[in-house]
Amino acid sequence: MDDRYGLARRVTLPGPLRLDGGGTLGPIDIAYETYGELAADGGNAILICHALTGDQHVASAHPRTGKPGWWTRLVGPGKPIDPARHFVICSNVLGSCMGSTGPASIDPSTGQPWGMRFPVITIRDMVRAQALLLDHLGVGRLMAVVGGSMGGMQALSWPATFPERVAAAVVIASTARHSAQNIAFHEVGRQAIMADPNWQGGEYHRGDPPSAGLAVARMAAHITYLSEAGLTEKFGRKLQARANQPEGAKGFGFDADFQVESYLRHQGLSFVDRFDANSYLYITRALDYFDLAEEHGGLLANAFRATAARFCLVSFDTDWLYPTADSRTIVHALNAAGRAVSFVELSSPYGHDAFLLDSPELNRVVDGFLRGGR
Amino acid sequence: MDDRYGLARRVTLPGPLRLDGGGTLGPIDIAYETYGELAADGGNAILICHALTGDQHVASAHPRTGKPGWWTRLVGPGKPIDPARHFVICSNVLGSCMGSTGPASIDPSTGQPWGMRFPVITIRDMVRAQALLLDHLGVGRLMAVVGGSMGGMQALSWPATFPERVAAAVVIASTARHSAQNIAFHEVGRQAIMADPNWQGGEYHRGDPPSAGLAVARMAAHITYLSEAGLTEKFGRKLQARANQPEGAKGFGFDADFQVESYLRHQGLSFVDRFDANSYLYITRALDYFDLAEEHGGLLANAFRATAARFCLVSFDTDWLYPTADSRTIVHALNAAGRAVSFVELSSPYGHDAFLLDSPELNRVVDGFLRGGR
Repeated sequence: MDDRYGLARRVTLPGPLRLDGGGTLGPIDIAYETYGELAADGGNAILICHALTGDQHVASAHPRTGKPGWWTRLVGPGKPIDPARHFVICSNVLGSCMGSTGPASIDPSTGQPWGMRFPVITIRDMVRAQALLLDHLGVGRLMAVVGGSMGGMQALSWPATFPERVAAAVVIASTARHSAQNIAFHEVGRQAIMADPNWQGGEYHRGDPPSAGLAVARMAAHITYLSEAGLTEKFGRKLQARANQPEGAKGFGFDADFQVESYLRHQGLSFVDRFDANSYLYITRALDYFDLAEEHGGLLANAFRATAARFCLVSFDTDWLYPTADSRTIVHALNAAGRAVSFVELSSPYGHDAFLLDSPELNRVVDGFLRGGR
Repeated sequence: MDDRYGLARRVTLPGPLRLDGGGTLGPIDIAYETYGELAADGGNAILICHALTGDQHVASAHPRTGKPGWWTRLVGPGKPIDPARHFVICSNVLGSCMGSTGPASIDPSTGQPWGMRFPVITIRDMVRAQALLLDHLGVGRLMAVVGGSMGGMQALSWPATFPERVAAAVVIASTARHSAQNIAFHEVGRQAIMADPNWQGGEYHRGDPPSAGLAVARMAAHITYLSEAGLTEKFGRKLQARANQPEGAKGFGFDADFQVESYLRHQGLSFVDRFDANSYLYITRALDYFDLAEEHGGLLANAFRATAARFCLVSFDTDWLYPTADSRTIVHALNAAGRAVSFVELSSPYGHDAFLLDSPELNRVVDGFLRGGR
């Protein structure tokens, strides 16, 4: 295969992978992309970690949809992370449905999809699976691990789990633990999926998937990715234009009347074409379980004592999913552990989603941080 | 019937009620409660307006559940609104399901429940129905109209719709218009209900109601009633105690593992026993359509030019559903219209729900404002 075009690749790793929940898993498939070449000294490897519903196509078009990579604003020629200088790796997380082993994969012991018999996994389990992939690729140590949102949790978990294998971590719009409100929103989504009769206890591979429930789950989650101000700016109370109706007139019915309703419905419907409902259950569970302090005796600073990695934290002022206070908590713990850390809160009207959008400041911060380690 | 015990009462009003959406409705049933006696001069009548899922049992036990009235903290002997001094009226809003005409009522033209053939109604339609009830009760003018949340919208709409019939309005934790984010959350709830196969296009009176969808809708809405800090204080990341499991250990499954999950599920399940899914669709629609400025030429101040009523606005600092900024917008418009207005932001950790909870400051504010008019 040709690295330059980032063609879809997948490796089967024998494992077994020991899981936080108890059991083991293996062999496991990991779907991944790489861009650029590993330097002779191995010192230019950067691992990019994706968010809840993301995939490995960080900097190249998705093979099925043709859409450009999801973080080409940050990763690509002339960007802070540049395949001309870096060996970039991005893998689909364990539990997902974009080629890596997850609940939709075949359980070798039954020949049937795992469904809800798939073991519950954690962010740390995802990181352990990534480490197996790095072993396979011959990458001993990462120049940096970089991620936003759930990707940021992996970027935090990496130096905590493999202190010697990471020189730097970039953690964007993320948190060291899910709050009660974060858990509550995910629980609404899970209940929406499990309330859909098509879900069938997760055995829907025999029939239609629980698309209606998954769409509702996505709609609820999507609201948390946007800021109130951003929604107001983009939609306000603007009404849909419709046939046989004066412009700006209410429909006095239950069709999507406001533009924000139509937008949300579209977000829900387009999501179900690309994502597996059981994967959504498992990955939201992993997010809700994430509490880096708890994994280290209840003190977050303890997570960072064994590593010598440098850290870069970025938050966005209108992000109410993982607000700036969550990043500050991490910065305080890093300081307490004596780690080098730079932290910046960026201004954006776009809420949590800002980390995926055009942000020259974000690019400058990441570029400066990555170059600073040289 | 005996007023002292606030027994459930209902009146059938001939109508026809002309609706904002076009058509007319009538005859209509209005279920209501009264407490106290109307003074000889008619000057002591106070109308209390309830919120989305509320009812007319504001100060007396619910006849079916036996639960105390929903606002006994503010209404009752020795309280700011006191049946010993005031004639207190509270009616179930048009479109609801606690005795007033709504989508679960029988459409006289078919002999079947209205279902989704019920006309879409507005906050102003609810207010017009309340005015018909006041006519029936012989109340010409209100000493005050008082409400929180959706009740506050009615309290705002009253002087705008019937400028001569209101001397004072108390508007608590409310807004003059639903924001894009408010609409978005309601749309998630409506989609959850309509995605439930039991909904059957609203014709579920022939079978089981769409309880699973309605429960998800309630769960999503309930998160918006609480503050992030309140959720953290009450639940944080505390786990459920369960049999056969060490205390504080994760279940690594999809049962309610965190206490906040169990709490939310309970909120959803207990709601479906007491509320009609179609009513939920219609009332959330009325809320989303609410934009008092739009009804008055696009300028909110215009809504208040014809009345001489005094206004009292109260917001809570952790309310992110209808934040303090929404109350400030109303206060600015009232000032522009030359109306007398007092405004206070109260501090509470409990978010939007604070208006229903114990708040000595709220009681002092309402008591002082109501006495000030004398």
